[in-house]
Amino acid sequence: MIPTLEWTAEGVRFLDQTRLPLEETYVLATTYNQIADVITTMVVRGAPAIGVSAAMGVAIGVQKSPATSIAALDADFEVIAKTLASTRPTAVNLFWGIERMRRRYNALKAEGKNLEEIRQGLIAEACRMYDEDIAACRTMGAHGASLMPQSGSVLTHCNAGALATCGYGSALGVIRAAVEQGHEIHVYADETRPFLQGARLTAWELMHDGIPTTVLCDNMAASLMRQGKIQAVIVGADRIAANGDVANKIGTYGVAVLAKEHGIPFYVAAPWSTIDLATAHGDDIPIEQRAAVEVTHHAGKQLTPHGVGIENPAFDVTPSKYITAIVTERGVLRAPFEESLADFELATPLRA
Amino acid sequence: MIPTLEWTAEGVRFLDQTRLPLEETYVLATTYNQIADVITTMVVRGAPAIGVSAAMGVAIGVQKSPATSIAALDADFEVIAKTLASTRPTAVNLFWGIERMRRRYNALKAEGKNLEEIRQGLIAEACRMYDEDIAACRTMGAHGASLMPQSGSVLTHCNAGALATCGYGSALGVIRAAVEQGHEIHVYADETRPFLQGARLTAWELMHDGIPTTVLCDNMAASLMRQGKIQAVIVGADRIAANGDVANKIGTYGVAVLAKEHGIPFYVAAPWSTIDLATAHGDDIPIEQRAAVEVTHHAGKQLTPHGVGIENPAFDVTPSKYITAIVTERGVLRAPFEESLADFELATPLRA
Repeated sequence: MIPTLEWTAEGVRFLDQTRLPLEETYVLATTYNQIADVITTMVVRGAPAIGVSAAMGVAIGVQKSPATSIAALDADFEVIAKTLASTRPTAVNLFWGIERMRRRYNALKAEGKNLEEIRQGLIAEACRMYDEDIAACRTMGAHGASLMPQSGSVLTHCNAGALATCGYGSALGVIRAAVEQGHEIHVYADETRPFLQGARLTAWELMHDGIPTTVLCDNMAASLMRQGKIQAVIVGADRIAANGDVANKIGTYGVAVLAKEHGIPFYVAAPWSTIDLATAHGDDIPIEQRAAVEVTHHAGKQLTPHGVGIENPAFDVTPSKYITAIVTERGVLRAPFEESLADFELATPLRA
Repeated sequence: MIPTLEWTAEGVRFLDQTRLPLEETYVLATTYNQIADVITTMVVRGAPAIGVSAAMGVAIGVQKSPATSIAALDADFEVIAKTLASTRPTAVNLFWGIERMRRRYNALKAEGKNLEEIRQGLIAEACRMYDEDIAACRTMGAHGASLMPQSGSVLTHCNAGALATCGYGSALGVIRAAVEQGHEIHVYADETRPFLQGARLTAWELMHDGIPTTVLCDNMAASLMRQGKIQAVIVGADRIAANGDVANKIGTYGVAVLAKEHGIPFYVAAPWSTIDLATAHGDDIPIEQRAAVEVTHHAGKQLTPHGVGIENPAFDVTPSKYITAIVTERGVLRAPFEESLADFELATPLRA
């Protein structure tokens, strides 16, 4: 079990993903501000992991609040929620996690619970979301495994693995489930510039599980596809709009176009908490722009000339026409996604 | 004028491209073995620059040969040519440069020149090739400038600039010529992993000339195209087969597919010395595989977990169907390329 994040008596313990793969160190966040910081600096990243981290941030914020009245706690709750919501704009799981905690907070108040019961109730809710996230990944794996080749290579971009979730992974969970069922799968991991989630994180966790893995630079995937070396692509998602458009790590869209050009199926795996039916189209999803230094420097060394312009969008949008299927814990969705997403939403109401 | 390489009385002086953009240092190669090393380690790179470097390597090898008879010099010539030919397999200009020197060597012998005259004749030939390369770049610029948008952004991949030639550049020469004619062009430069020729070299030389430039990670180009931010793509080539297929820096093929998907013209600029009519199809072009360490490490720091598999092909092949036009010093070629290449070859015979 890869310990991405964990609720402990002292606070939330995060595996520091900025230091992988060579150093396995941990960060203990004991305040909601520290959790906001851990999300912003990408010590923890990946939409499902961010969602649960934010929920734990709310829980720890309320736990540590000095409020002695519901009114005072209400005020603190708003500050905590606002702080956590302002960390990263694209992954809808962040807002989902905070909103689910808000609903639970309101329910506990409506039930007449006292301050201590509310604090304990929110901790329990955040831990429940953690357990549900791992369960959702395992169910995604069960639903998606048969989509993977019986024998062959699967390309993935960024890290949608145990490190992007509370455990097991979304896209890598589907690969893990297929391997557990006896598929012989080799994974090509795009290194995923500029933050190198593929080279550092996907490679690390797949090697941890003994799944054969080859790292390539992002610009090498097209050539491998043309040579027939890739049988399927599977990636995660940071937000899925009502029409099936998918926001995911920058570069995903290019991989999807290339997969279509080569007749290779392109799958997206994500828990239902990533689906945002309130956003009609992918182009309505806010795209986070990150600091230029992630592109201009590596390991403290400057790569680019002084003063050159830099692009650094963290995500892009893949229109649904490039997507073969979306794997969720509720089942496998196919086009037309606007209909299948609405149907699955109605057929399987949210638990919380 | 950017001093990519230069024949001097002491030897060939190379701008060390492995240290750009932050350090402008030079390497003086005084033997043919040193020139082979400079090519292998990519102190100099870019197909046209490699071709002339190899020719200068032959010239310096013959100059320094202790041979006192034609027979002894013949033997040395073969060792020199073989050493230089074994440096990098993909750019055909390397073999073209060596072969042109061999033809000149044989011509000088046939003319009954003595050893000193042969030595001086070969130096003169290499320097002529240097001058012709710059002239070819300027002519490519004149032919290709009108293909560039009057106002807009042009994407390029890797470095096909002054640093990849003896001066002015092939793809960047076309951009320079358009700018000189008053086009308002902003360049998007793919950083071009793993060696970062775009981030380091293209950015450096365009800023040197005051052409507005933005560096992006390779995986960001697709998203910019979808947003309508790119009006044309122009790249160089390492070898062009008789059917118009183009071998160029790894990642070029993916950019070409994306350009086609977005209705963006995709141009290739290369001197005629890059065209290899003896190779029928792009898939017959040998693709150099380079050391894994270029992908696994940067600035001495390891990026990937120990023992993971690595892909590092230096080039890929773009089938001619993705190419809008090929710009050469003989003119602009259009599909069907098999015919236009054959026609231009016949209409404008090689000078040497």
